[in-house]
Amino acid sequence: MDQQDERIIRIAELEIDPAHLAEYRTLLAEEIEASIAKEPGVVMLHAVAERERPEQVRILEVYADRQAYEAHIRTPHFLKYKEGTAYMIKALRLIDVDPIAVNAKVYP
Amino acid sequence: MDQQDERIIRIAELEIDPAHLAEYRTLLAEEIEASIAKEPGVVMLHAVAERERPEQVRILEVYADRQAYEAHIRTPHFLKYKEGTAYMIKALRLIDVDPIAVNAKVYP
Repeated sequence: MDQQDERIIRIAELEIDPAHLAEYRTLLAEEIEASIAKEPGVVMLHAVAERERPEQVRILEVYADRQAYEAHIRTPHFLKYKEGTAYMIKALRLIDVDPIAVNAKVYP
Repeated sequence: MDQQDERIIRIAELEIDPAHLAEYRTLLAEEIEASIAKEPGVVMLHAVAERERPEQVRILEVYADRQAYEAHIRTPHFLKYKEGTAYMIKALRLIDVDPIAVNAKVYP
């Protein structure tokens, strides 16, 4: 598999200001739901928070290709998230990754 | 959504011996493909390697519930992976996480 794999796959590691964690979670969830619903090129966006350190947020991002990614970061829902949460984010690290196995279960 | 969310969601952070990285990737990919194909309760297993530090492997694991997880770690394919790769793994950290948004795109 993964012949001619043009997907952009990334992990975002974020540290959120604990004072704004609930708002941040809401805005991120809205942004992800809109992206998955409206953008065919956004293949996966999975966001989780560490249970013991909930200010530590991790997002696994999969875009169909570079073009899909470039389009994503220009959408109104992404810009709303980006601008609306900027002051809540204490640290952000974007890590390019290569797939070993990145496949959701396909339900019949 | 996520009413009555019984899913077990976890991030595994692994450091692999660089001398065995290719073998490790193959064994992990086989294990994941078998789990997704054979176990209804294994919802997602996404494994990636950092591009700049490929010995750093991250796995996002989603199981339907505790029972599905307990069944998973007793399967022949998991035990083959676990026993076959033990000597390749220099460090392993399992992090319990809570979902903010964990939803694959559902294709029509």
